[in-house]
Amino acid sequence: MERSYYRTLLLDFYGELLTDKQREYFDWHYNNDLSLAEIAQSEGITRQGVWDSIRRAEDSMRRLEQKTGLIARGTRQREITDRAAGLLQELKSLTSGRAGELVRLLETELQELRHGL
Amino acid sequence: MERSYYRTLLLDFYGELLTDKQREYFDWHYNNDLSLAEIAQSEGITRQGVWDSIRRAEDSMRRLEQKTGLIARGTRQREITDRAAGLLQELKSLTSGRAGELVRLLETELQELRHGL
Repeated sequence: MERSYYRTLLLDFYGELLTDKQREYFDWHYNNDLSLAEIAQSEGITRQGVWDSIRRAEDSMRRLEQKTGLIARGTRQREITDRAAGLLQELKSLTSGRAGELVRLLETELQELRHGL
Repeated sequence: MERSYYRTLLLDFYGELLTDKQREYFDWHYNNDLSLAEIAQSEGITRQGVWDSIRRAEDSMRRLEQKTGLIARGTRQREITDRAAGLLQELKSLTSGRAGELVRLLETELQELRHGL
């Protein structure tokens, strides 16, 4: 998995378990592309202080994932729903009438499911 | 949601973030139906000590869920997959040939998905 995407997942699953500052610096740096220097300046602390906070945040979240495996679980679910989406796509071309309607309803459910993963 | 089922979910999602003793006492008491007195005797501690540990475990896990909302997310996903299962059931009766085969493949994916929720 791409590292930056993985960091987004870490923050999504475990961000609320960080301190406010850890979460903010991590989010600003990795998701909003602010440099350490920019964060340091706006917060009135050292660049090293910002970096320490971000590293601690990532370490905490990786430990949480190691223990709970919740991101790995979500990733497997996404793989399954991707395959299901492919099957539905083919099924759509083969059905009509009530069956076609059911396939469209299934598509809606699947979209909602993937949205929440 | 039934309280005992919710406790099973709490332990499933957050059990690994408890201390070993907290996880064990909680599991023995709620999932294996051991009484506080039985746990106290086998561990050589007081009944109150066992109860304090179990209460602290539940408090910790409820706080984790309040912050992360991961069980709520999983519950919504289960509701969606339940609806999808109903749609597939009806679709099965309306399809045959390649479409029927696709529906069976979708059922397999859905089962795997629900198994991991």
